Amino acid sequence: MAIRDPEIIRDKQQMRNWSRSMRSQGKTIGLVPTMGYLHQGHLSLIAEARKHAQLIVVSIYVNPGQFSATEDLSTYPSDFHGDIEKLKSINGGVDVVFNPKDLYDYGGDRERSGGNEVEREGGVVVSCLEDGGGGHETWIRVERLEKGMCGRSRPVFFRGVATVVAKLFNVVEPDVAVFGKKDYQQWRIVQRMVRDLDFGVKVIGAEMIRDEDGLAMSSRNVHLSPQERGQALSISRSLFEAKSAAKGGKTACSELRRSVIESIEAAGGKIDYVEIVDQESLEAVEEIKGGGVVVCVAAWFGKVRLIDNMEIHL
Amino acid sequence: MAIRDPEIIRDKQQMRNWSRSMRSQGKTIGLVPTMGYLHQGHLSLIAEARKHAQLIVVSIYVNPGQFSATEDLSTYPSDFHGDIEKLKSINGGVDVVFNPKDLYDYGGDRERSGGNEVEREGGVVVSCLEDGGGGHETWIRVERLEKGMCGRSRPVFFRGVATVVAKLFNVVEPDVAVFGKKDYQQWRIVQRMVRDLDFGVKVIGAEMIRDEDGLAMSSRNVHLSPQERGQALSISRSLFEAKSAAKGGKTACSELRRSVIESIEAAGGKIDYVEIVDQESLEAVEEIKGGGVVVCVAAWFGKVRLIDNMEIHL
Repeated sequence: MAIRDPEIIRDKQQMRNWSRSMRSQGKTIGLVPTMGYLHQGHLSLIAEARKHAQLIVVSIYVNPGQFSATEDLSTYPSDFHGDIEKLKSINGGVDVVFNPKDLYDYGGDRERSGGNEVEREGGVVVSCLEDGGGGHETWIRVERLEKGMCGRSRPVFFRGVATVVAKLFNVVEPDVAVFGKKDYQQWRIVQRMVRDLDFGVKVIGAEMIRDEDGLAMSSRNVHLSPQERGQALSISRSLFEAKSAAKGGKTACSELRRSVIESIEAAGGKIDYVEIVDQESLEAVEEIKGGGVVVCVAAWFGKVRLIDNMEIHL
Repeated sequence: MAIRDPEIIRDKQQMRNWSRSMRSQGKTIGLVPTMGYLHQGHLSLIAEARKHAQLIVVSIYVNPGQFSATEDLSTYPSDFHGDIEKLKSINGGVDVVFNPKDLYDYGGDRERSGGNEVEREGGVVVSCLEDGGGGHETWIRVERLEKGMCGRSRPVFFRGVATVVAKLFNVVEPDVAVFGKKDYQQWRIVQRMVRDLDFGVKVIGAEMIRDEDGLAMSSRNVHLSPQERGQALSISRSLFEAKSAAKGGKTACSELRRSVIESIEAAGGKIDYVEIVDQESLEAVEEIKGGGVVVCVAAWFGKVRLIDNMEIHL
């Protein structure tokens, strides 16, 4: 297992130049967008990308555009040095870490019109709210898929995700990009955006990775107290139970949904949503029949909001 | 002057393959997006593109996404054969005409949920309204620049323009793209979108071309009766007068604006808007000082809505 230092690129133009130079040599490029604080889940996305592309770019960028003023941008965990060490250790390594300081800095005078500005290492970032957001004013919306589930409690989230992914695609110009099915709605939104805007990028959805106890891996798990972490296992447990129940013939979604909600609440969680939806359209399903559905959950344990999901094919 | 047949490409993937093959040979590509029914104005955009790129792609596509249900999608003039003849005759010719049948056809089942469907040669197109628009659901908005002027009377117009331009950029992958300053707000919106989404495309604004009588060239002029055309000259006349007046020291925008409105109304036009705005931000200006402003006009003559503008630098 070779240990190999990735090239670290912080400048957009330099990033694009690297990609174009590689493409002109006939190389294919895989992009794995992350917000850093890497864990096994991220590393599995990189392994997936390796199957589809010769060169791997991992972007590490906490995107202020997807946080609202009341969300956890300022406390989002980061450990750039540790991330690089992890990337060095993986099989095959990665070729480039794209770590821009500020993807929304366009030179020139930046208006600061009341956005959610937060100090982070290296400078000020601006959370781009409807009426703030500095000079940046272009937003991509995937209008149907963004409405439900996480979109209800986080109204600017998917707008921010779609927009920053488009920016990363335009800067990195990858052939393929890998997204985790842990963020199921995000994955579907990116897929739809790529189709609707004709991006020349193939989007791959990679399976979720769980800790041994069943908890879906997330950078935010670090904020859970040991007690909260124990309680949070109710999410995955109730999802596995729902899958078994469905396979056992209990196909009425209202009942399955109620069981999941009750289990999580009994463990001390506060439900944001539990929904059973079609895997493509993300529209609510009443009865599980042939087609694929996915049970999606968001719940709070203490101050930490966790999401998880379970695909069910009968 | 060589007469040369452009290659006509109708398929997205084939278009991208052509561009990538040319780029891999070190060639640069200039895109001139049009809705067809070409006139001298379009040909001047192509001449401008020639200055910046080695190969020229002209797209001819009437974009349903930028028309609302009440607008003139079905009567928008077209003459594909005549367009090709014009393109053959110009100095240097063009390399490719990209003429997709339907940029919003993604294969698969297309939902038809009450959009503005109109028969055109070659099939049905769907005008993508807020709650319709078939399977396409991803839209780009340039939130500040799209609000004023044409955005007020045509609420889905710039959303449709920004979105189709992004699609064309992703399919054609040009190095530069040329837009006419005749569509001043559109040009600024595309520039801003390119900056905000980090497209690797240089946007060029080309000067407006007028007929000898002063009328700004537009495909829609063909719908004017001779009498309306005579009346419509009041637009350019009043704009030239405003420029002279400003240069002569009459710098209060309220007065300049009133003169333009009065001239056009006296000639029988119906004003949509007359605004004097900063050339970059498109925000209203009260007094013309050092910086560049532009006087923008939209007015109806009969059933034809015309736009025109005049940059003023003191």
